[in-house]
Amino acid sequence: MVHTVAVIGAGPSGLASVKACLDEGMVPTCFESSDDMGGLWKFKEVSEPNRASIYRSLTINIWKEMMCYSDFPIPADYPNYMHHSKILKYFRMYAEHFKLLKHIRFQTSVKSVRQRPDFSRTGQWEVVTENRDGQEETWVFDAVICCSGHFNYPNLPLKDFPGIETFEGKYFHSWDYKGPEDMYGKRVVVIGIGNSGGDIAVEGSRVAEQVYLSTRSGAWVIRQVSDNGLPVDRFNTRFVHVMFKLLPMRFLNWLGEKKLNSMYDHAMYGLKPKHRFFSQIPVINDDLPFKILSGSVIVKPNIKEIRGSSVVFDDGSVVENVDMIVFATGYNYDFPYLPNNVLYKSGHRVGLYKLVLPPNLEHPTLAIVGFIHSDGAIMPQAEMQARWVARVFKGHKKLPSNQAMIKAVEKDTRSIEKKYVVSKLTPIQVDFVEYMDELAKDLGARPSLPWLFFTDYPLFKRVFWGPVTAYQYRLMGPGKWEGARKAIFTQFDRMYQPLKTRQLDAQQPSTSGRLIKLSLTLVAGGAALYYVHIRNPTTFPALLSRLHLQTV
Amino acid sequence: MVHTVAVIGAGPSGLASVKACLDEGMVPTCFESSDDMGGLWKFKEVSEPNRASIYRSLTINIWKEMMCYSDFPIPADYPNYMHHSKILKYFRMYAEHFKLLKHIRFQTSVKSVRQRPDFSRTGQWEVVTENRDGQEETWVFDAVICCSGHFNYPNLPLKDFPGIETFEGKYFHSWDYKGPEDMYGKRVVVIGIGNSGGDIAVEGSRVAEQVYLSTRSGAWVIRQVSDNGLPVDRFNTRFVHVMFKLLPMRFLNWLGEKKLNSMYDHAMYGLKPKHRFFSQIPVINDDLPFKILSGSVIVKPNIKEIRGSSVVFDDGSVVENVDMIVFATGYNYDFPYLPNNVLYKSGHRVGLYKLVLPPNLEHPTLAIVGFIHSDGAIMPQAEMQARWVARVFKGHKKLPSNQAMIKAVEKDTRSIEKKYVVSKLTPIQVDFVEYMDELAKDLGARPSLPWLFFTDYPLFKRVFWGPVTAYQYRLMGPGKWEGARKAIFTQFDRMYQPLKTRQLDAQQPSTSGRLIKLSLTLVAGGAALYYVHIRNPTTFPALLSRLHLQTV
Repeated sequence: MVHTVAVIGAGPSGLASVKACLDEGMVPTCFESSDDMGGLWKFKEVSEPNRASIYRSLTINIWKEMMCYSDFPIPADYPNYMHHSKILKYFRMYAEHFKLLKHIRFQTSVKSVRQRPDFSRTGQWEVVTENRDGQEETWVFDAVICCSGHFNYPNLPLKDFPGIETFEGKYFHSWDYKGPEDMYGKRVVVIGIGNSGGDIAVEGSRVAEQVYLSTRSGAWVIRQVSDNGLPVDRFNTRFVHVMFKLLPMRFLNWLGEKKLNSMYDHAMYGLKPKHRFFSQIPVINDDLPFKILSGSVIVKPNIKEIRGSSVVFDDGSVVENVDMIVFATGYNYDFPYLPNNVLYKSGHRVGLYKLVLPPNLEHPTLAIVGFIHSDGAIMPQAEMQARWVARVFKGHKKLPSNQAMIKAVEKDTRSIEKKYVVSKLTPIQVDFVEYMDELAKDLGARPSLPWLFFTDYPLFKRVFWGPVTAYQYRLMGPGKWEGARKAIFTQFDRMYQPLKTRQLDAQQPSTSGRLIKLSLTLVAGGAALYYVHIRNPTTFPALLSRLHLQTV
Repeated sequence: MVHTVAVIGAGPSGLASVKACLDEGMVPTCFESSDDMGGLWKFKEVSEPNRASIYRSLTINIWKEMMCYSDFPIPADYPNYMHHSKILKYFRMYAEHFKLLKHIRFQTSVKSVRQRPDFSRTGQWEVVTENRDGQEETWVFDAVICCSGHFNYPNLPLKDFPGIETFEGKYFHSWDYKGPEDMYGKRVVVIGIGNSGGDIAVEGSRVAEQVYLSTRSGAWVIRQVSDNGLPVDRFNTRFVHVMFKLLPMRFLNWLGEKKLNSMYDHAMYGLKPKHRFFSQIPVINDDLPFKILSGSVIVKPNIKEIRGSSVVFDDGSVVENVDMIVFATGYNYDFPYLPNNVLYKSGHRVGLYKLVLPPNLEHPTLAIVGFIHSDGAIMPQAEMQARWVARVFKGHKKLPSNQAMIKAVEKDTRSIEKKYVVSKLTPIQVDFVEYMDELAKDLGARPSLPWLFFTDYPLFKRVFWGPVTAYQYRLMGPGKWEGARKAIFTQFDRMYQPLKTRQLDAQQPSTSGRLIKLSLTLVAGGAALYYVHIRNPTTFPALLSRLHLQTV
């Protein structure tokens, strides 16, 4: 029976893990190598080796209601998409509220985690740490949760860029990027159109002479400001999840791509990838389209070679006098402190049962939490993993045999590889809702829709038609939170709150009022409009464009 | 008969005026007070008194095909929305191509323009200039065209901001704004939501601790990246112009606002103004919506008062520790070198016949060109005014009596004031197509649709359904240009050209191909989709939001 748990890292996943252990009555000790919590969300002016790094302007691209922990909503007045400084504030509130701080040892890094000689009997681990003074300490824990993150080791594939050694300018990985200061008047090539690549290209283009965004495979790019200006994640509902089970993926891809191209034609903008829309996680960037249309970001194909200050692309085109190349080429993962035999590859994926437990250990007393890649935020997923593994540690949750777990991992690998375009850079990709539901079901915390339908219809409506916010996993079962129902009923209030900064004049005619007033003209206009449509379907923007003023 | 013409200013309007004079066989002398052409489009690191000023990042918000001169298309590879540096390059090409430079006297400012003693007989003007060495020179011209611009005199209404004298931070007019350098980590209030205010708020928000955007009346904000990613101006067609004649304005407003709110609800975003959509020229800003949703720009009402470092708004809310206030409060106009009796007010407007000629002079030998405010770019409108006035100077175009012209001005004033919310900051507002057509008709250069319909149907189609690009006014009549037809047929090629920077894999299934392949699944999906729609009309973005990755 596990009592003491080592939690490695005090980032979003580590904090959730410490709390999960406390909730199950265990005694966690969290080792954090830096001097603060927050993991990658702790901004540093200078990147530090073997640690995640973010840039000054970084704003998270998940809606606040979809990124928060399930029992600790983000303050109502916080913006819908938060700057890293606000996210860190939120983590501090969380740690304070649940009294996590006293369990964290800062400036203490973990050197090694090894099975104790009597592991087969005790399942215990020996953890060697080093404090800021270089003093080593050896600990014994019943279990270990690794939350050291997966954006610590930049992937810099220089060998794929012949001639890089001849490059006369400056090149670096996006991990080193803090802001566009060095790009004033420069000619910059950004390699890779992930979220970092997109952000850096757009930000750099505001000061650079010219930015080129080189992408081998292209990307589907979505906006966070979705229909009617709502956060795009607001539409990530259980209803939609059901639709994804019912409708053919080809049709969904066609529909999604149609919608996306109606915003801006991805072929016209040179972005269109080979893969279909839902077979890879899209890039999120609201500013990129206009930067491309106004030519400050020029999309280019893959780089063929580099010659001095010239960059040659696959299509033979050459960009000269390049001052800077930014490799936004993603990250590799590593858990240097773990024994080699613990983690193994399953295809491109890491062999982990439920993406948490190495399936080949005698005792399930080692877990990886927050090592995940999906269409949702890390926080709720890591929290769910932590809740689940805490139950496993306590013995409340019986696991299958090692063989069965290994088989499950293989099956999992096949199904994901069928669904997504995977690579070594996406070792642990999942579908957010599916994965959350799966763990929650195992945990006994998955909301029962039939039950809600009959016992609490208003709540059912919100759970089924509303966004799959993590509060849903606190409605029932272990870890039930009394505030969950209220949190779900008030989630849209928290969406509107930060936008209520300028009261509108009550005198304004309401939409309905307008509609009534307009009904007559509508009848008259309807016919004409019908003609408009048939003959010229692009008339709505036309109306917009009618009034148009030259800048300044 | 006019032979010599003084052109005051070598900006976009001055260049067009010099060319128009040359085309009519007159001898222009252009006086430019600065050392370069381009007017406000000539960027200077430090603003110079009594001269227009722009910021480093300024990109024009009119599509290149709608902003160019009618007989000199912008190079195909230039971006659809051009940075000021490219616009200046374009002006240089124009001046060089039409050999305008030798008619321009740089660093020569005009001190005064006075009627000659024998004006009633000769219609001549005495022009006093001063060169860089302070030497004055007196000239005599048969006519004068004033192209000194209307963004030279910042409007800084400090008296409307009680307590501004107590403000402890730094305040300045947007005219002084060059870039966000001084805003790092600052708390900034931007006053006014014109195009400058929007741009400065967005740009500042990337480095400031917080930006507040204060607006008394709100605004409708449109995107340049319109449906399918086409430039919004591309939809400014003659067909739409006809629709505006046919359909009730109320209905058009309802339609326009509906479209705009479907992008993002202007009420939810705190932007919704009291005025209807088409009664004022909208703000153009693609980046603002996300800045508001992510809270880096906070929309606020009008400022009530300022106390030390605190700013109090009309709703009683207070923002403290404000470091900087930017007055994006527009510009006043002045023609200090003209006699007082030449320009008079007509309501909020300036009394000018066809917005060009003071109607109260004995001889129509003084013109104001490019002093205009509309939903189109200055360049083609100034060019049209110059072409028209050159014909007047040459006597090819007979004018009504002074009385008749003054009446016409009054009528004009009334109709505009009925149509738009006008103010002293919009002294000369017009409807782009209507105004261009009116002058062109007078000039004999307005394209005859019936004629085109019967003689050149392919061209008719492009003129009627396509954007109202200025090439249309070079198809017939005086100033006819042989290249006009071709320019119209190739205008979309020039739109696509700058975007063709990454060839797409030919292997990709074409849309039609996809459609065929998908027809079956469509049938299956159709029914389900129908249900989706009825029950949950917001499903498209939902699909998009399904795949969603956390930044970095």
